[in-house]
Amino acid sequence: MQTLAPHHDGSPLHVSSLEPALGDIVRVRLRVPGGYGPLTAVCVRSNPDHEPEWADATPVGAADGWDWWEAEVTVRNPRHGYRWMLRHADGRVEWLNQTGLHTIETLDADDFALVATPAPPAWLFGGVMYQVFPDRFARSVLADERPTPDWAVPAKWGDPVEGASPARSQQFYGGDLDGIIEKLDHLVWLGVDILYLTPVFPARSNHRYDAATFDHVDPLLGGDEAYIRLIDAAHARGIRVIGDLTSNHSGDTHEWFRAAYGHPGAPEEKLYHFTDDANTEYVSWLGFSSLPKFDWTSPELRRRFVEGEESIVARWLRPPFSTDGWRIDVANMTGRMGAVDVNAEVRQLLRATMARINSDTILLGEVTNDAVSDLQGDGWHGAMTYPSFTRPLWGWLSQDAHEARSHVDGVEQTDAWFFGQPIGGIPRYTARDFVDSVIRFTAGIPWRVRLGNMQPLDTHDTARFATHAAPGTIPVAVGLSMTLPGLPVVYAGDEFGLVGLDGELSRTPMPWDDMDRPEVAERLALYRVFVTLRRAHPVLGTGGLRWLHVDDSGLVFVRESAGESVLVLAARGDLDIELPSGAMPGAAEAQALHGDATFAVADDGAVLLSAEGPVFAAWMLPGVSAPAGDGASAHGEPSRDVVDGETPTPAEVVSADASEDAA
Amino acid sequence: MQTLAPHHDGSPLHVSSLEPALGDIVRVRLRVPGGYGPLTAVCVRSNPDHEPEWADATPVGAADGWDWWEAEVTVRNPRHGYRWMLRHADGRVEWLNQTGLHTIETLDADDFALVATPAPPAWLFGGVMYQVFPDRFARSVLADERPTPDWAVPAKWGDPVEGASPARSQQFYGGDLDGIIEKLDHLVWLGVDILYLTPVFPARSNHRYDAATFDHVDPLLGGDEAYIRLIDAAHARGIRVIGDLTSNHSGDTHEWFRAAYGHPGAPEEKLYHFTDDANTEYVSWLGFSSLPKFDWTSPELRRRFVEGEESIVARWLRPPFSTDGWRIDVANMTGRMGAVDVNAEVRQLLRATMARINSDTILLGEVTNDAVSDLQGDGWHGAMTYPSFTRPLWGWLSQDAHEARSHVDGVEQTDAWFFGQPIGGIPRYTARDFVDSVIRFTAGIPWRVRLGNMQPLDTHDTARFATHAAPGTIPVAVGLSMTLPGLPVVYAGDEFGLVGLDGELSRTPMPWDDMDRPEVAERLALYRVFVTLRRAHPVLGTGGLRWLHVDDSGLVFVRESAGESVLVLAARGDLDIELPSGAMPGAAEAQALHGDATFAVADDGAVLLSAEGPVFAAWMLPGVSAPAGDGASAHGEPSRDVVDGETPTPAEVVSADASEDAA
Repeated sequence: MQTLAPHHDGSPLHVSSLEPALGDIVRVRLRVPGGYGPLTAVCVRSNPDHEPEWADATPVGAADGWDWWEAEVTVRNPRHGYRWMLRHADGRVEWLNQTGLHTIETLDADDFALVATPAPPAWLFGGVMYQVFPDRFARSVLADERPTPDWAVPAKWGDPVEGASPARSQQFYGGDLDGIIEKLDHLVWLGVDILYLTPVFPARSNHRYDAATFDHVDPLLGGDEAYIRLIDAAHARGIRVIGDLTSNHSGDTHEWFRAAYGHPGAPEEKLYHFTDDANTEYVSWLGFSSLPKFDWTSPELRRRFVEGEESIVARWLRPPFSTDGWRIDVANMTGRMGAVDVNAEVRQLLRATMARINSDTILLGEVTNDAVSDLQGDGWHGAMTYPSFTRPLWGWLSQDAHEARSHVDGVEQTDAWFFGQPIGGIPRYTARDFVDSVIRFTAGIPWRVRLGNMQPLDTHDTARFATHAAPGTIPVAVGLSMTLPGLPVVYAGDEFGLVGLDGELSRTPMPWDDMDRPEVAERLALYRVFVTLRRAHPVLGTGGLRWLHVDDSGLVFVRESAGESVLVLAARGDLDIELPSGAMPGAAEAQALHGDATFAVADDGAVLLSAEGPVFAAWMLPGVSAPAGDGASAHGEPSRDVVDGETPTPAEVVSADASEDAA
Repeated sequence: MQTLAPHHDGSPLHVSSLEPALGDIVRVRLRVPGGYGPLTAVCVRSNPDHEPEWADATPVGAADGWDWWEAEVTVRNPRHGYRWMLRHADGRVEWLNQTGLHTIETLDADDFALVATPAPPAWLFGGVMYQVFPDRFARSVLADERPTPDWAVPAKWGDPVEGASPARSQQFYGGDLDGIIEKLDHLVWLGVDILYLTPVFPARSNHRYDAATFDHVDPLLGGDEAYIRLIDAAHARGIRVIGDLTSNHSGDTHEWFRAAYGHPGAPEEKLYHFTDDANTEYVSWLGFSSLPKFDWTSPELRRRFVEGEESIVARWLRPPFSTDGWRIDVANMTGRMGAVDVNAEVRQLLRATMARINSDTILLGEVTNDAVSDLQGDGWHGAMTYPSFTRPLWGWLSQDAHEARSHVDGVEQTDAWFFGQPIGGIPRYTARDFVDSVIRFTAGIPWRVRLGNMQPLDTHDTARFATHAAPGTIPVAVGLSMTLPGLPVVYAGDEFGLVGLDGELSRTPMPWDDMDRPEVAERLALYRVFVTLRRAHPVLGTGGLRWLHVDDSGLVFVRESAGESVLVLAARGDLDIELPSGAMPGAAEAQALHGDATFAVADDGAVLLSAEGPVFAAWMLPGVSAPAGDGASAHGEPSRDVVDGETPTPAEVVSADASEDAA
């Protein structure tokens, strides 16, 4: 990775529209460090209908030591890929795509990509998400009056969580929606603005992923009335609410399934995959018979679930519910079985219906592993996915003690849980491995869609990161989740410092009574600072991403926009580096936002960064200056400044020790 | 690239079936060099319906210093991807996929992949293809009696080829099918066994890609009778014949198009993309109005072109024509336009019809750039594609003089033609760049499909490689085309040493009278030797591929099977390397097949290779020993031998100087 290298990303600095229609012309820009060339040509290579099409870029001027080139791209396909080609005067050719700079030809899949489908609402990019598992979040007094359901094993709020089945799904703490309402001001205090609720439909488990109906909210949670109260109360506080829908399967007590099970010829039989004549054997999710799999080739399923105003997907978006979007459970397997794969149709149908009902909604798909193939902009606005952030983060920032205990179905394991991968615990990643992973698992995703990817440290399906975090790395992890491109997600309880060895044991009831304990108060403050940092700087939502330094110990990147830039340093060990002159224009005006690190600017503009790890630090810098690019400057000669090789002299030092100043 | 590294590929040594059905269990094997571990676990990670599924591998024994592991994979999707995970005793984790060995998690797209569709006939993998452009190959006396068509500019056989339009498409040499029949014994002499004819349907150009009908063969070529004669004569000599079909467009004189043009309401209007009410404006290939684009959403087009026994695709495969397959022109754009992409449907329909008529046929698609997305085993058996072999080969082995002249539409250019890429001539690749490109553009393709990819040095659409070949590199290029996995293709005339600056100027009439000129005779002999080498060693068709050495100057790989192995050395510069002990079991029994290089085996089994470049050399070695893998050996302890660090002593030297011995 060269610090001073040609740069392009999908952000507004470099792309004139993030929401083009087919046929639109989009202007794309490349910036090249002064002295990098001389270049004799810069071209953009698109691939409409899978046939290469070339456009010449023209120099549009220089600013702050960078030469800017611009080309026009006519958007020809819903996903319109493009790459840059740079011709050097000495005959060398370079290609730039989402994986970086190459001297050999590159793959279509790694192209930058414009997306000619309607964009998600802007609030997806500006927000911070807070994930709540209703049974464990908060319990209102109303819950005391509700009978315990027959499947449930009642638990008191402070009881330890059961890790073994079947108890783990039956243990019932009785958190409810009015409980959440009572705690909404905690969300306000934290600064989060998107509340994501795991399922609220009636079921026979505490997690409710085995829905018995999609027609009303579980009375154990307070029913439809409580749901409406919650959404109204959230909206009143500027908080949007998204629900959780299982499109891959229902519960085996679902009304549709009961109508079909053992009833050959029932209209509902086509909604599932029955494998015998008696409708008693069927395909289910990973073989769990309580979760019969939907058959998405069924027109009747499509009618009930996704088509039209009365469909499941639609009705919860309409008043009086007015849900602000969906997170789709097991999106990766939806519509896929053996030789059949109608996943793309289903996700497109989902979004089409949502857009018709209320385009100011978001659609996120659970694609827990490599999400590239499903995230091309035609359906999901983003994914709940782990390999592009969460897993490599764990790999980098976890304790070295890999013998950390965990449980699988209640049985103690000698290796730490790691996302169901039998790899012997948590892998040991360097900062470089972390960055390589982020690049690898995002390079195939169009920039706009990548911005919608959820970026949690952990979720209700995983152990808690804090369980394994190396000493001092929590701020590094939280800081990265808030500053890398993507949707930050706080899983309720992380801000209290909760731990948990796997996805069951992390579902601890919220320890509201512990808020005043010093270590909890400190962790709460830390989260608040970081959420506030994110929301105070829109560049962290939609700004570009330029890597400035990566080594085994740490990394430095900058998020950039015309209005402002934020420079981020994150390291597990110590870092003491120099970014060459030209790498970071505007460095002299840096203002510390967070963290304990030293930022010095030499006379020649080189930036000296130094910190003792683990450390997360951020600075605000001026926005990026770019030529106007109008006709007048289109023929301006790009500068050919050569980078000065002299050792810089520190001239100005901005000490970044401002953890509490972000708000 | 480590010489002694765990290895797997899709070949029969490592995969129990190349033609599984959905639901079949396939045994896959990994071999690990002795002393590489110790490994505490080896697993296979599949991804059925996009959800990870793990299978433990068990050690099945050791052979020749390698430990073999085996796992069972149940084939769950038509393309069933899988990767290997290796756990080391020290906690390290490694992943192995088609791009190589990784310490961080890997992408689904780079997985190894089984393909659960019917395999192409075995002759695709055993064959060598010979490409003929009928107007330029040979002219029978029958041609003298045919009138010159109105569009044509007659040329005598020795006339120079016109590079500029419109003359370039009108220049008519009058080669015909009986001319080809007369020269079939040349093909027999060369040893090729698949004849690929560019289009033979009537048209208004010498290339005939602007078909006027698909119902009969151009009378200028001798008509249907001559076509039948040619195929019979070829079959009698053991040569199969494949045709060339334009599925993306027809000519504007095509009978379907004439029926639709200017005739709103004609049944044929739905076959094309008319854009006005009068049916006079329409979408055409890259804007060339003579090539109106087909609309593959049209049921009528599907009916006429591809569905049933009377469809175009079918009838030419049936007697009396009995064509052995199709190369599909502009396959990459077929069925793709703007928001519509039915390419997968079309390629699947094409193959389904072919398989019904005669499954002993092959289907190749022209996908001239990155072919990964289209080559997943559901339609094309392979592609005419350039970035995975041809282009990087040019990059590596062309002269350094990049100012080589070329023409674009008859206008002389200062930069050499390079596949239409405006990159300033031919890029300068090292051997390492060549190998990186081969890996990059094949890693996303299932092994079985990759074996069907055409591997030409050049075609009727490109300049001739010999035009730019650095001195002495022709044997290197031809040798690689015959020994790397893929279908070798000789474009008629290459074996005479023809040159040509672009795809027009390379369509030189065959210089049959020059066969006895010494330099031509030498080149002919060279091709014959290499074709014979390929066909004499089935391992070059279906054997595995293991890279043993790559540097800027050259490369070494081995093709492996149970019956035999072939070691290949190819270098532009000098090479003097040592393959460590264990890298090449059986080296002591090496027999030189071709080339001027030294092969020596040290006492400890290390192999010393040395040659002055440019050089292509090959040796035959014993097949790979593998444990039987039955129950008895399943619990055998893999060996843990440590590689000996001593300097090896040359013990046996096999001088490879056997250019003419391959037959």
